[in-house]
Order: sequence, then structure tokens, then C-alpha cells
Amino acid sequence: MKLDGAEIRSIVRTPDGRGVRILDQRKLPWEVLWVELRSAADAARAIREMWTRGAPLIGVTGAYGLAMALAEDPSDASLAAAYAMLVETRPTAVNLRWALDEVRTAVAPLAPAARAGAAFVRAEAIADEDVALNHAIGVHGLDLLRHLSAANPGRPLNILTHCNPGWLATVAYGTATAPIYLAHDAGIDLHVWVDETRPRNQGALLTAFELANHGVPHTVIADNAGGLLMARGQVDAVIVGTDRVTANGDVCNKIGTYLKALAAHDCGVPFYVAMSYTTIDRGTPSGDVVPIEDRDGDELALLAGPAGDGAIGTVRVTASPAYNPAFDVTPARLVTGYLTEQGLLTEI
Amino acid sequence: MKLDGAEIRSIVRTPDGRGVRILDQRKLPWEVLWVELRSAADAARAIREMWTRGAPLIGVTGAYGLAMALAEDPSDASLAAAYAMLVETRPTAVNLRWALDEVRTAVAPLAPAARAGAAFVRAEAIADEDVALNHAIGVHGLDLLRHLSAANPGRPLNILTHCNPGWLATVAYGTATAPIYLAHDAGIDLHVWVDETRPRNQGALLTAFELANHGVPHTVIADNAGGLLMARGQVDAVIVGTDRVTANGDVCNKIGTYLKALAAHDCGVPFYVAMSYTTIDRGTPSGDVVPIEDRDGDELALLAGPAGDGAIGTVRVTASPAYNPAFDVTPARLVTGYLTEQGLLTEI
Repeated sequence: MKLDGAEIRSIVRTPDGRGVRILDQRKLPWEVLWVELRSAADAARAIREMWTRGAPLIGVTGAYGLAMALAEDPSDASLAAAYAMLVETRPTAVNLRWALDEVRTAVAPLAPAARAGAAFVRAEAIADEDVALNHAIGVHGLDLLRHLSAANPGRPLNILTHCNPGWLATVAYGTATAPIYLAHDAGIDLHVWVDETRPRNQGALLTAFELANHGVPHTVIADNAGGLLMARGQVDAVIVGTDRVTANGDVCNKIGTYLKALAAHDCGVPFYVAMSYTTIDRGTPSGDVVPIEDRDGDELALLAGPAGDGAIGTVRVTASPAYNPAFDVTPARLVTGYLTEQGLLTEI
Repeated sequence: MKLDGAEIRSIVRTPDGRGVRILDQRKLPWEVLWVELRSAADAARAIREMWTRGAPLIGVTGAYGLAMALAEDPSDASLAAAYAMLVETRPTAVNLRWALDEVRTAVAPLAPAARAGAAFVRAEAIADEDVALNHAIGVHGLDLLRHLSAANPGRPLNILTHCNPGWLATVAYGTATAPIYLAHDAGIDLHVWVDETRPRNQGALLTAFELANHGVPHTVIADNAGGLLMARGQVDAVIVGTDRVTANGDVCNKIGTYLKALAAHDCGVPFYVAMSYTTIDRGTPSGDVVPIEDRDGDELALLAGPAGDGAIGTVRVTASPAYNPAFDVTPARLVTGYLTEQGLLTEI
């Protein structure tokens, strides 16, 4: 994925090796601001305040956070305190806990002096694994899109996506966007319908930013519009990401995903969930029992963006109380396939 | 329906009888500004630029517009020119054309000197008929809500609605809100989930404004949230309005309605369409052939509201191209019932 013409990752080590640089995603697409995280507290704040987001990238950021805590104080107490602080930043994502567990397991048996180095090595490996697995998702997805494109010759292949399952949510490629990037790079003529994704507008802001920078044709639509487009035959496939897939194949993802899955099912449009295999939570039987994070109503009621003078302003969009659940559950019966690094699965 | 504690209508004659006053709905809920329309051109501009909106209110505004044109110049040429100007302001709504036809038919046979007076009389009658029919919709809907409330004792009845099928879209009561106002006034404990309704946010701005002024408990949600709420049993009924119901019962309404109908169907939540009987367009066989109005993408890309200092500001919500279809089609198979002034119909 390109940013200003260069291939990049969403999280990189600082030159001195002691911290990491991330994009402050709250400012995108209006300002491309790299910020340095130099402590576990920095990492926790960046996750909690959503400077960085997306299940895989949160996991990697947490892993580096633990490494930075150990660089400062490699004691058991420091490890436990940093783990506790980081794991509580976002309750829904399982990747964060998994990544923190990976680092803790790797370093706990070591002598304190060896812990920070080993933690950075493990965090870096988690990042590299994320790149490799998203690329693998992309390779399998490319097969799929090639097939769909061949079935619809002479016109662009239309993909609809929701939220930001892109490289900004991972270390590189993204999950749902990996097939799109690989297909675009392979010369497949495609166009992406980008759901705005209220209330935080990750689609209109982040996915659109990614696609614009990579040169992929795309159009932003209101979340309300996808049903019409599917009914009119203007969508060939829906590809979304996910925060958690339960043992029965239910998909927990950004609020609104369920509505798009219903429309896809009603209109005969294939609905794919792109994800790493580790996103499957076999300990949870179905989506009915997944806790749904309720976020601040002000995320809906207040909206920021550049005003006429170019400065970022915030406007109020309603004078009434607002309720803001962050995720919904798409039943497995509505999912055509799960696009993983192991290939396209039709059931979990 | 109350505004600042007083019972009001959304369009009223000026004291001199030569014009009408309407609310500039672009400024609501932040500013309650009544504006005077004193010519057909004023009326056309108010409709075209959406100072006023909603199929029934557009019809009444158009009818008064024709009357004002005839007050200025009662010739056949003036009638034809004003009719042509007004009918072109919004292509989708059938009520506008119907109301203009009503006035034209009433005045065309008359001597020029009698035309303006007769046109005002007919326009006023159309307004009164709208009030009466919405009240009748409300009476039938009250029966329905009383039944639903009795079936779910000891808790508020939860209604979800989309866009603004309220008194601001009609002359009084609204269509989908008429049952809500009558039920609330009858002491039924109810709560309304108000879809934000991107891109123009008629729910978050107008429906929420109406409900707040009338004292009806309500909460604004992202359009994305309704599916989750229905799946969790937090919605007892969906009631929406419509711009056009085709001969087979398909419902053309604000973009996103189809998605809510799908969720209601999937979750076993009854889905009602409130409308005047004249909204049925028997000349159009199905929703597949209804032209869908594409509006300016800037309606999605730019969003206005009060900034921190209270002044209305406009911010940009995406840097990418946006596509903005205004309506979608809900197939008849997803509709539980049509709530009309003639009663609850289960088919058209």
C-alpha cells in the first residue's frame, strides 16, 4: 500500500529502536501526522483514545507497549502492571489480549536483563506475521476477485466495504482491503463503494484515504445507500473485516455490518469476511453472548472535519440524547465465506 | 404537536392572506426561523432548496405557490408557467404533482379574476385535508400501539423510525409520527429510536426536534445501529413514511429504509408504512421502475451544525468523491402493514 507514493507500514520502530511511530489516525485524512510512542502509557493512551485502531494494529501496538515497559523496568511487577493497563484499553478485541499474552509468555521465563530485547523481538515478529497473513488473505482474495471479474467482463468489479478493515487497521495490506490492493496491482479493473461508517466515519475518512493514496477508484456512500446499490446490481461482492468470529461462525464487526449482510443475502450478492484465523474465538459459542461495547454518545453527536478555512472544526449533529453501540453481530447464515490466510472457508 | 408549548401547523397563511409562512427547516433544530413565501418563485425555491420538505408539505407549498402566481397574474400563460416551474422542483414525489393538478383543475375553467381566490381556497382545503388524514392515520395507529403496548406490559414501547415522517413533513401530526403523538398524548409509555438518517440527518435534526418539543422520550442512533437493536429485542415496531407506494405495494422512501425493513423481517419486528392513501401510485407496477433521485454528493461530504461558539459551521466529512442516491425501494414482502387514513391495510 502506498502513502505519498512510498510503500509503508502503519507502525514502525523509531531509528533508536526504543519506541515506535504510528499515524495519529484521528487526524486522517486531513493531516498525515506520525507520532512517537515511547512508553507503555503512550501505547495505552494511543489505543484508548483511538489514535490507532483496528484489532491487529491494536495488538501490535500493545505488544510494543509491553516491550517499552520492560525496557524501562524489566521486573515482574512492571510486566504485570503494564499488561493490566494495556489489556483494559479495549474490551472487545481478542487480538490485543492474544498479542500481550504472546509477549508475556515469551519474556516471563527470562532473566530481567534479557526481557526487553526479547519482547521487542516478539513484538516485531507479531508485526511481520500480520503483514504475511494479510498478504496471504490478499492472495486468496485475489483468486476470488479474479474469478468474479472474469464472470463480469467489460466493466469494473464493484466491491462494497464497511468501516476500515485496511492497512491502517493492521500493519500492512489490511484484511478486507488486501484482496482489493492485490487485485488493483494485478490490473483487475475494480471500484470500491466505501461505507461512510457512522458514527466515527472510518470508511469516509480512513478507507477512502487509503484507496486514494493507492490509486484505487472508489466512491464514498452513506451507510444507508448500500441496500439500494445491491438491489440495483451495482455491487458484485461485499468484503468486511471482523473483530471476532464466534465458534458457530457469527461475525462481530463494526455496527451496521449486519444490515449490509442482510441486503447482500436478499440481493444474492456474496458476503465475505476477511480475517486472520486467530480472530476465531472458539471459546464463545455464538454472537448472542458477545458483549457489545457502548461508546460515548458524543461520538455520534459531534463531528469533526475541516471547515471552510481549512482548520479542523467540530459541529454538533443533534440536540437530543444519542446512543452509540459500537458493534453488531452478523449471523453465520448470512456469510458466504471467511477469507483467511489459510484460504476461503465456507464454515468455521 | 407542540412547538414552544403551543399547538402549531408547519405552513400557515400570512395575516394579509397573500402569502404563507413556513419554517426554514435547514436551520432546525438550532434556530426556529419562520420565513414568508410571497410568490410562486419563493415557493419553488423553498421546495427546491429544501427549506421545506416532506411529500405532503411540498404538495401544499406547491398549491399555495400556484395560488400566489395567480394572485400576481391570473392568465393561462401565468398558470402554465407557474405549474411548470413548481412541478419540476422535485421529481420523485407524486403529491406535489397531485396538489398542483388539483389547483389547476379547480381554477382553469374560471374567469381570470376568480382564479386566485379559488386557488387559495383549494390550497387551504388541501392543507386541512392533510391535517385530517394524518389525524386519521394516527387514530388507526393508536389502536395498533395500544395493542403492542398491552402485549409488552411494564416497560416502554420502543418504536424505531427513519428520516422525518413528522409534522415538519406534513401540515400537522406527520404520517409515521401521528400514532406516536396520539399514543403519547393518550398516556402510553413509549420511547422512539430516531435514525440519524444520513446524509441529510433529518432524523437527528428534525424528528428529534419534534419529539423533544412534544415531550416524547427519544434517543438518536446511527443508521447503522437499528439492526443490533432489533436483534436484541429493543424495538417493538418500525414505523416509516413513504414518498410513493407502487401498485404491488413496494415502498419508495428515504435511502436506508430497505435496510431497516430487512432487519425487522429478520428479527420478527413488525414493519409499518404510514401514509395517505393518495401516496399509492397505481400507475407504477413496482418499485423496480421508480426513478431514484440522485442528489449532490456534497450533501454527504459537507455537514453543518453549531460549532463550539454556537455559530453554525460546516465541516467536510470526506476528501473523496461521494455518491448520494436519495431513496431506496422496500419490497412489499417486507412490509407488515400500510397504516392509512382508511385503516391498517395488509396489502395494496
